Formats: sequence, C-alpha cells, structure tokens
Amino acid sequence: MIVITSNHTPEEQLQDIIAVIEKEGLQAHVSRGADRTVIGLIGSVNPQLAAHLRQMKGVENVVKISKSYKLASRDFHPDDTVIDIRGVKIGGGNLVIMGGPCAVESPEQIDEIARLVKASGAQVLRGGAFKPRTGPYSFQGVGVEGLTMMQEAGRRHGLLTITEVMTPEYVDICAEHADILQVGTRNMQNFDLLRKLGTCGRPVLLKRGFSATYDELLNAAEYILAGGNKDVMLCERGVRTFETYTRNTLDLAAIPALQSLSHLPVISDPSHGTGRRELVEPMSKASVAAGADGLIIEMHTDPDNSMTGDGVQSLFPDQFHNLVQDLGRLAPLVGRQMSPQARDAVTI
Amino acid sequence: MIVITSNHTPEEQLQDIIAVIEKEGLQAHVSRGADRTVIGLIGSVNPQLAAHLRQMKGVENVVKISKSYKLASRDFHPDDTVIDIRGVKIGGGNLVIMGGPCAVESPEQIDEIARLVKASGAQVLRGGAFKPRTGPYSFQGVGVEGLTMMQEAGRRHGLLTITEVMTPEYVDICAEHADILQVGTRNMQNFDLLRKLGTCGRPVLLKRGFSATYDELLNAAEYILAGGNKDVMLCERGVRTFETYTRNTLDLAAIPALQSLSHLPVISDPSHGTGRRELVEPMSKASVAAGADGLIIEMHTDPDNSMTGDGVQSLFPDQFHNLVQDLGRLAPLVGRQMSPQARDAVTI
Amino acid sequence: MIVITSNHTPEEQLQDIIAVIEKEGLQAHVSRGADRTVIGLIGSVNPQLAAHLRQMKGVENVVKISKSYKLASRDFHPDDTVIDIRGVKIGGGNLVIMGGPCAVESPEQIDEIARLVKASGAQVLRGGAFKPRTGPYSFQGVGVEGLTMMQEAGRRHGLLTITEVMTPEYVDICAEHADILQVGTRNMQNFDLLRKLGTCGRPVLLKRGFSATYDELLNAAEYILAGGNKDVMLCERGVRTFETYTRNTLDLAAIPALQSLSHLPVISDPSHGTGRRELVEPMSKASVAAGADGLIIEMHTDPDNSMTGDGVQSLFPDQFHNLVQDLGRLAPLVGRQMSPQARDAVTI
Amino acid sequence: MIVITSNHTPEEQLQDIIAVIEKEGLQAHVSRGADRTVIGLIGSVNPQLAAHLRQMKGVENVVKISKSYKLASRDFHPDDTVIDIRGVKIGGGNLVIMGGPCAVESPEQIDEIARLVKASGAQVLRGGAFKPRTGPYSFQGVGVEGLTMMQEAGRRHGLLTITEVMTPEYVDICAEHADILQVGTRNMQNFDLLRKLGTCGRPVLLKRGFSATYDELLNAAEYILAGGNKDVMLCERGVRTFETYTRNTLDLAAIPALQSLSHLPVISDPSHGTGRRELVEPMSKASVAAGADGLIIEMHTDPDNSMTGDGVQSLFPDQFHNLVQDLGRLAPLVGRQMSPQARDAVTI
Repeated sequence: MIVITSNHTPEEQLQDIIAVIEKEGLQAHVSRGADRTVIGLIGSVNPQLAAHLRQMKGVENVVKISKSYKLASRDFHPDDTVIDIRGVKIGGGNLVIMGGPCAVESPEQIDEIARLVKASGAQVLRGGAFKPRTGPYSFQGVGVEGLTMMQEAGRRHGLLTITEVMTPEYVDICAEHADILQVGTRNMQNFDLLRKLGTCGRPVLLKRGFSATYDELLNAAEYILAGGNKDVMLCERGVRTFETYTRNTLDLAAIPALQSLSHLPVISDPSHGTGRRELVEPMSKASVAAGADGLIIEMHTDPDNSMTGDGVQSLFPDQFHNLVQDLGRLAPLVGRQMSPQARDAVTI
Repeated sequence: MIVITSNHTPEEQLQDIIAVIEKEGLQAHVSRGADRTVIGLIGSVNPQLAAHLRQMKGVENVVKISKSYKLASRDFHPDDTVIDIRGVKIGGGNLVIMGGPCAVESPEQIDEIARLVKASGAQVLRGGAFKPRTGPYSFQGVGVEGLTMMQEAGRRHGLLTITEVMTPEYVDICAEHADILQVGTRNMQNFDLLRKLGTCGRPVLLKRGFSATYDELLNAAEYILAGGNKDVMLCERGVRTFETYTRNTLDLAAIPALQSLSHLPVISDPSHGTGRRELVEPMSKASVAAGADGLIIEMHTDPDNSMTGDGVQSLFPDQFHNLVQDLGRLAPLVGRQMSPQARDAVTI
Repeated sequence: MIVITSNHTPEEQLQDIIAVIEKEGLQAHVSRGADRTVIGLIGSVNPQLAAHLRQMKGVENVVKISKSYKLASRDFHPDDTVIDIRGVKIGGGNLVIMGGPCAVESPEQIDEIARLVKASGAQVLRGGAFKPRTGPYSFQGVGVEGLTMMQEAGRRHGLLTITEVMTPEYVDICAEHADILQVGTRNMQNFDLLRKLGTCGRPVLLKRGFSATYDELLNAAEYILAGGNKDVMLCERGVRTFETYTRNTLDLAAIPALQSLSHLPVISDPSHGTGRRELVEPMSKASVAAGADGLIIEMHTDPDNSMTGDGVQSLFPDQFHNLVQDLGRLAPLVGRQMSPQARDAVTI
Repeated sequence: MIVITSNHTPEEQLQDIIAVIEKEGLQAHVSRGADRTVIGLIGSVNPQLAAHLRQMKGVENVVKISKSYKLASRDFHPDDTVIDIRGVKIGGGNLVIMGGPCAVESPEQIDEIARLVKASGAQVLRGGAFKPRTGPYSFQGVGVEGLTMMQEAGRRHGLLTITEVMTPEYVDICAEHADILQVGTRNMQNFDLLRKLGTCGRPVLLKRGFSATYDELLNAAEYILAGGNKDVMLCERGVRTFETYTRNTLDLAAIPALQSLSHLPVISDPSHGTGRRELVEPMSKASVAAGADGLIIEMHTDPDNSMTGDGVQSLFPDQFHNLVQDLGRLAPLVGRQMSPQARDAVTI
C-alpha cells in the first residue's frame, strides 16, 4: 500500500502518519519529493489501516497495490482450475455447452428439450425451478417439483444439470437434485448465499452482477472458495449501459481479462447478455473466439409461449443444434476442444 | 399495450397477430397507416402475451403503457403515505433525520453516539450489526449482540432505531430489536428477503440498487407491499457511473421523480451517495432542497478508527450537529418541517 | 509518479526500470517489500515516460499522483475566480441566473422573453442561434441573424447574453454579439474549438460532456485557460446513466467537488440535466443548496410550440419568475447572494 | 407515432389532443380502453409536433415508431454497402484489416511500419497526424507533415491510408493525402465536421462516441450521407462503463446489431476498445467471429517509446503479423473472406 501526501505536507503531519504505520508493526518507506512525499507500506496491511490513513491530515490518497482476493487469484494458483463432473471437464482448454429453457415448465417440456440438447452434442441441461423476477406478479417458477423434473430429464438423456438457487435455505435441496448450482446476477453479492455455497459440495456458476466490476466478481467468488468449495465458474452475462437496443452489453473482454486475473473457468451467457435471439449466434461465436471456457444458452421448443416471457432471447432447437456444431468447428482455431459428454446417465 | 408492426407487414401476418390477441379475450384496435399498422390492446394484459407478440412475424415492437407495480404507484394511492412510529412521522411534509455509525462496535460507542444524535435533534439512530462486505476477509459486523446494544442505546436516549437485515432468516430477530429494517443496495432484488419483509410487522427502508432504475426500485417495493406491509420508505443512495472521484453518483432527481410516481416517502443517503465526508453537508442540504422526506447520515465519534473503514464518509459529531440545525432552517423554505421526536423512550 | 512492480520482479528488471528513470534525470526512490517493490519518481514527469514504464517487464502499474491540469487547479490558484461582466459577478459567493429559450426563434419571441427574464431578477439571457441536433433533419437554429436578435433583446432589457458556439469559424462572430460563449456537451473535447476560445476575449461557459469525468472537464477547461482566457465557468448538465425516466442524471455532487478541485465558478443546468419541466424547480433549489454559483434554465413563453421540441423541459414564465424569487430566499442559507444586475443596458 | 393518455383523461382533453393532430393534416386513430386511451398518428410527423403533444394536458407519453435516420437504415437500402477503394472492398462479406501506429512520428517510422503492415497481408495503413488529447500539454501530433509522410509510405508499399480529421478546416487537406478519413469518438457529434465530410469525396470511418447509442451513431452517419457521401463505415471502439480494468468496454453486440439496423460496413477497434495489448488478440478474433467487416489495430515497432503513450495498447510487429494470419483462417468460418489488397501502389 502506498500513502500519497498532499502538496507540502508539514513534517509534523508526516511524522504522525509514519507513527500510525509503525504502530501496526509495518515498515514505512519514505520518498521525499519537491512537492510531495510518498510513503510505501511493506507488509500485510489490513483494510482498516488504509481507511484510517486515508482520513489523516496531510494524506491525499492511499493506493492499494495488492488484490483483496487470494484464493481466486492466478498469482496464488497459476494453473487453470479444471472442474471434472463425471467426465465433463470445465476449464483447461475444454469448451462446455449448457443449454435449455429459462424455466422448467413441465416434465414433457424439459424431457423433450433435454433430448435435443443431448443430440446437439452439448453436455449440460439448464433450467430454472425458482425464477427471480423484477415484479411480484410475474411467474416465479414451478418450485421444488421443477428440480425433480429436470433431474429426471438429465438422468434419462445423460446430461449434467444446472439450476439457479436464490436463497440460503434452498441450497441443500438444489444440491440434492442438480450437478451445478447457479448464482444469478442479482445475488452476486448475497453474501449469506455465497457462504452457504462454500460448503454445498457442488460446483457453482457465479454470474457477474449487472454492474459489478471484475474485482467485485472475484471477491464474490472468494466468499465461496473461502468456504472450502474450489469448483467455481465465473460467468459474464452482460452489464448495464445506456444502450437500450440490447438488454445488456455483453463485455467479452471480461473473458480474457478474468482468465488472466484468475485460474477459474469463465463461461459466457449470450442469451441474457443480449436479450435478442438474433444476436445469440454471433455473440456465442465471438465468446468462443475470445477464449470462453463454456457457454450457457437458452433454447426452447416453443419460445413464443415460454412461461417467463424470456422466449425472445431463446433459440429454436434447430438454431441451437447448428450453433453447437459451428462452435465445435470454431473451437480448435482458438485452442479449445469440445468437452466430452458425461460418462454415464446417472445424474447424482 | 401497443403492438407496432414492421414496415409493410403483410395482411396475413396482421391477421395472425389479431387472432392471438382476441384468443386472450382482448380487443384489438387497429390503426392502419401508410407504412405501418399499430394495434392497441385494451384490457388487462399478462406479460407472457407481450413476450409472445414481440416474437411474432411482422411485429417490430410491443410497448407497455401500464406500470407493472400497483400498490407502490401514486395512480392507485394519490395521498402521501405517512408512517408514524411512536410519534415520529415520515412522509407527508415531515423531515426525519437518521444518524449514527456505519457499524455498531461496542455498547459504549453506540451509547455515546446515540446521545449525540438525540442532542442534535435527529429522531432515528442508525447502526449496522451485520455488514455486507465486498470481500470475505473484511469485518462483517458484531452480529446479534449489536442489535441489543443498539436497542438499549435507542431506548435510553429516546430514539427510534434502524438496522440492516441481509437474509430472510434474520428478519425476525432484527424486527424484535429495531424499529425500522433496512434493505441494502446489494439486496434490493433479493426477492426472498423482500417477501419475508412483507410480513415482518416493521417499517422497511429499501435502498435503491446501485444500478437499478426507478421502475425496478418500485417493483422491489411492490414485493414488500404485496405481502401486506404498507410502511415502506424508498432510499436514494447513489448509482454507479464512470466517475470515480465520488464513490457513487447521488441521483437527487430521483427524489421528486419517485415522489411523483409513488406515494411512499423518499429518504436520501448522502454518505454512501458520495463516499466523501466533505460532500455530505452540501448534498444533505441539496437533498432537502430537492424535497427529500428524510436523510440517513453516517456519524462517528472517531471516524478515523471506525471498524468498517467507512469512516472516510462519516461526519464528526459537531459537523452532524450543525448540519441538523442547518437542515431545520432550510426545510421550511421547501415546505417541510422537522419531524417531532419519538413520544417516549421505550423502543419497541 | 509511482511504479508498482509485479510480484517477485527479478532484480535485473528492477535495475532496467531504475535505469530508464535515471536516464530522464529523475530520482528513483526504491522501497523493497516482501512481495513487491515500489519505486517513487521525484521530479517533473512527462506522460510518455509513464507510458513507457507501464510497458516495461516487471511493472504492474504506474500511478499518477499529480493532476495533469494546472491553471484550472485550486492548488495553483487558491482563491475563487470571480468573473465580472459589467457589474454582474460570477463566482465568489454570488449567484447568477441565466434564463431564456432553447433557441432564438424571432425578434418578438426573444424580446418578450428578455423582458420576462429581466423582470424576474435574473441577470443573463440565454438563447441558441446555432443548435446541435442529433439528426440532420431537425431544426438547426436560425443562424447568424439569431445572434443579432438576441443582442438587441439583451441590450434593450439590460441583460447579459450567452449563446452556444459549435465550431471554431463561428467563434469571432459569436464573440461580437454575445457576452458569454457556451460550449455544449458534445463539444467539450472539440479541442480546436477550445483552443480558439482561449483567445476569444469573452468569458466561456464549458459544459461537461455527457459522460465526461471531472478530470476530463478540468483538462478541457485547461485548454481555454492555457490560451490566455481566464474567465471560464464549468457547467454540470447531467451525465448519461441507465435511467431513462430522466433525460440525464444531474450529478449535483459535481458542484462542491469541482469547487474543491478548482477555483472556477460552477453553474448547474437543471433543464438539460433532467429533461422534465416538473423536475426543474426542485433540482434548481437543490443546485443552489449544493453551492452552485449559478443556474442556466430554459424558459419559453410558449413551450408547447418551441421550435426545437425541447419545450418539454422549459418552464413557463410564471414558473421561472417564482423560482427566481425562491432561489433568492434560499441563497443566503448557504452563504450565497443573488448577483447584482448588469450596470447598464449597453450589451457589448 | 402514438400518443398514450393518462389514466382517465377527460373527454375534453382528448378532443384538444385530437384537434392538434388534425390541424397538422394527420389522421388520429383513437383506441379507447378501460383506463387509458391511445391515439395513433398516421402520416409523416415532425418532431415539434411530438414535443408539443408530449406537453399537453392528458398526455402521459408519446412513442416514436419510425427511426429518425433514413439513408443509413437498412429499411431503405436492403443490400450491404460495399465500398471499393482501388480494389480493396469493404463490406459485403469482405474482411479488411487496418494497422499502424497511433501517431505518425517520422518518415522512417511510418515507412518501416507500412512495410510490416503490407507483409502481414493487411490492406490499410493507419496513423494520426493530428491527435486529440485530453490535456493541452500532451503531444498533439506532428501535423500536416505527417500526412505527407504517411501518404508516401502508403504509396511505396501499396497500402490504402486512413487518418483522423478533427476540424472542418482540415478536411480538404486530409482528403488530399489520405484514402479514408476518420472521425474520432470525441467528434461523433461535431456536426459541422460531419457536414463537411458529406462533400469531401473520400470514404469516412465514423467512430462511435464513447457513450453514444446505436441510434445516435446512425444519426451521425446520416449527417454525412445526407451531404451526398455514401461511403461511410461505422466503427465500434468501446463504450465507457464503471469497469476500470479495461480502458473501455468493447460492445461487440454492436457489430451484428448495427449490421441489422444499417447497410453500412462495421469496423471494430480492439485497441482503443480494451486499452491493453494482451486483450487485442482475443478481442480481434471475437470481432471477426461476431461478423465484423474489418478491424483497425494499433501496431508499433517500438511501442514502449511511442510518442503518444498509447503504446500500451499497440501490438508488436510479430504479434500483428500472426494475428492477421489467424484472422484469415477464422474468417471463412463466419462467411467472411480477407479483402484483396490494393490494385496498385499509387495512393490517390
């Protein structure tokens, strides 16, 4: 950490600052300049000290030079994390495709979609049993029964399953029924939920908050990792900007940037990231070209009648099928290979 | 709702669109123009129909003309909501001041601050027992004990109390100990929490998410109101922009805008809204001039040593005291009067 | 400037970095830590050196600790700039009100509005002869004739005048006809225009770009100041956010923040800052309470028929009149007094 | 255009609204609902009428249903615009690569870079003679001489050239020396410059303003097209968000979105779009995968010593060379082919 003093800070104030630093058992390296003096702190600095210093007379700024997350950082874990779920590998040069409807609606719906997802070559079935909705009067998902419907569809067709969990009390039941638990954009900083997921025994896909920075996303991942769960995927799903033509602005630079800052796999969500069906295909390809470790894509057999009204961003089955083929051809050009399918049909 | 068709939509597609509308038992009012045709839907329209229509061939856009929230809307409740908590009135021309530390740290700390808050003329003591923190290694609050410390300090000094609740399972215990429950910016769309607050029996202060729109904030309020709890305050606390000099950009136009869209009281938080102590005073005055129904301001007896490191935005006690006096003088010029203090010292 | 090296940078790379610094005749103060080494540069650092260092092996970050503007900075000019135009004082505790239509439309229109502006107690008549418009088919202003119409109206009613200039070649003619030249939000970084204004001999009101930072605004002001023109006002007019209910998000914290960073007067524009007539009054009061040195407000005798279509944010004459009275009462509570009117009726 | 009235607007106000519409010679199609009435306007509506209506009593909202640009719209020009400059084709399935330094520094520098650009297989040499800089004390480019240096380098190596023009008075001289003129992000709404470019006789690359919407970009293009210049390219170069790790957030969904809204070619600028050298490669590939018609990439033989300090985002020559090869392999997978090189070495 570095303390930058104001223009012409009096010596007395400098000594006060140094005293505070040394009281914490740290060394203060002082560089005196014509206008300003700069003090480098060497050692492990707690955040309160930074805050304290920032408020002292004579201090203009305090600059943090270490990251606040450790377990998520590539500095501390240089090799890619590779998550292996019954033979499906996520991270480390593999490309995984997750597809399915926004919401589980009925056993027939999810079974038919699972069949199509499997046939396309994708590895994971997505589907929401609990849906976070902006307003209280919208369809909120079919609930716990949806978990069973999806589990059975996944099992029958040999697919892994992923579903969103919205509150700590439902973590256990979701973990019983699904292979991967997903944290939605609105819950990226629901810290009680993150803590609970740290001990849930299932891989977690953590979506970036819609106006969160990379640093905040990695700190949120740190909550899960710190609980002992090493299998975390980061998910870029678009940030909010002033552009309203797209639902969000998919920030694809986040893919290589997060891969450089962290060893965790990075998944892209072009469906929520654009909110428009016709943009899902080009942005899926762009995500793979940018180096994504996987994609999570909405597909529905009857998007015009989907219960959440999110059908506008869902692909039709044949679009999804063709896209997965195209992505398989694209992947080798950027050093990726399609992840193998699940080893057996027994989900969980 | 209005359906706008594409340029030169063929008659056949128009008829398909009209058929879908009428199948739902709604009337379709068709206006044919030179280039485009516009279809007005009269009646109560469910969101799935909108989504369905948006995806039909020949449809360029579907425009919603009713709001998705009702209980929060001034259309349905023209008079100001006035919340009365033991004589302290919030809304309806009253100005309420809430002050206190970011976090409760010890019985002595919160008691001394409560004394100063009361002496300034403010009505409510704020303080966090549970703290939402970006990283898992930061101070997370003193927990349940903090609730008791604050309750006793409030009771002793005749102040109402407000504290943040972060997860559904803590709602009951917070409601036992505090007069007002606060939902933080990161939890504005924690829908399980909102639902639980709908039946908690305490007034709720709901902070705007740091990149939420007015519409989303009002929909979040609707979750609480729909549960039966009528005592909701909206809180503007700054939105995220590209400016980094301030911690957030305090959107004061939200105050009159939300008061026009809704009957709920609107509180301003200049401490988190700016993140800089020296800006709290001018932005507090500006909030009152913009018509705020109240302010929530951080004050600390020793901000340089606050445990959360948020001291950088906390006022010193004398600054807080003088500010409350100034606000009392400013209020009458914009048709506000300082709310009376609590009728008695018995909190809860 | 400070150079922060990577984790465990090899000694050889450190020596390379130090050599580059010393080659420029600067001193390198090295603080070696357990993980990282920090190098402070003392002396006047050119931006190319910073860029060069940032790219060297072993460098993680380079932190600028001095501002890139000087003439605009309060560090170099501690006292408030007070601009005096024929007795109207802007800055230094005075409050100046500028009012008038978005666009000059006819001699009668601008004369009648000037009469009303004067009667309200305001000091400056605003009006555009050249209008920047998003699309090429919108009304683009009446052009040079508008300058004469406004000059005569100002002269007749004893008001100063302000008008927007959009391109370097029109600076001279605008300077002949108006007392203050305005740079619009889209031209804040039109550097050729700024340079020309540095020698135009008229005070300049510089609007913040709609997504510019404080730092960029102050650097843009520096272009004008560096040309020799000391009479620059900064204008906050709202920034673009994801909120669409308001046209822009008026960032009132910019007022005290810019006044702290700079000695230049800060004017608020609640008309463009909100884009909604009913929000202009509360945001004008809030601007004054936040410490604004002045306001620029749209007023029109027939806003529903204004030629630019901006009437939706223009006040009616009686609203403007009452608002100016209210602001006059509010100003003393925040240490401001209404600026005197122009000494005589001879504009220019 | 559609007028949406307020809840329970009285019949009298409705009649007033209808009268205003019919006075303009337009038909008003009235759809009366339980709560609200909706009025469709058929015919060509001028923007002032919209503004007028929006302000009338009883009107809640006015919704525009036609776009304000025409020449730029695919509705009016369904086929892709293909710009052909001496055999180099831009648009219509061709991929064009523009490479070179941020700024022209010397004849030797630009000649050596031109040689490398040509050898890589790229078609266009970029380089700035005039540089827009945030602060007045930064290097501002070598000026007119730079134009000649670049023209000669392009001619010698058989490359087209592109350079930025910042002010109307320099359009003619830039058009004499360069094949393509570029409008920078800060000048996207410098309307006098755009008008002048409408008659300059050279193709124009128009960069998106760093917080402009697609609609605003297309309206800016409309200014150039309306002047008679049909050869306009749109350029996505990143928008400003709250993320500070990258210089901007490159919005790749803009590529297919703009191609759907418009027939103009869309070029991506991953150098300014990320501001970090290591992200240029993945984002170049992602741009091509998203369907870009071309790329403009910074390359420098000695980026650590570039005069603008933008070297941090410039590729080294071998990185650039390899990238162009990789892009050539990627293009066919998304239906693009590398554009042929210029037919002869005679630039202009």
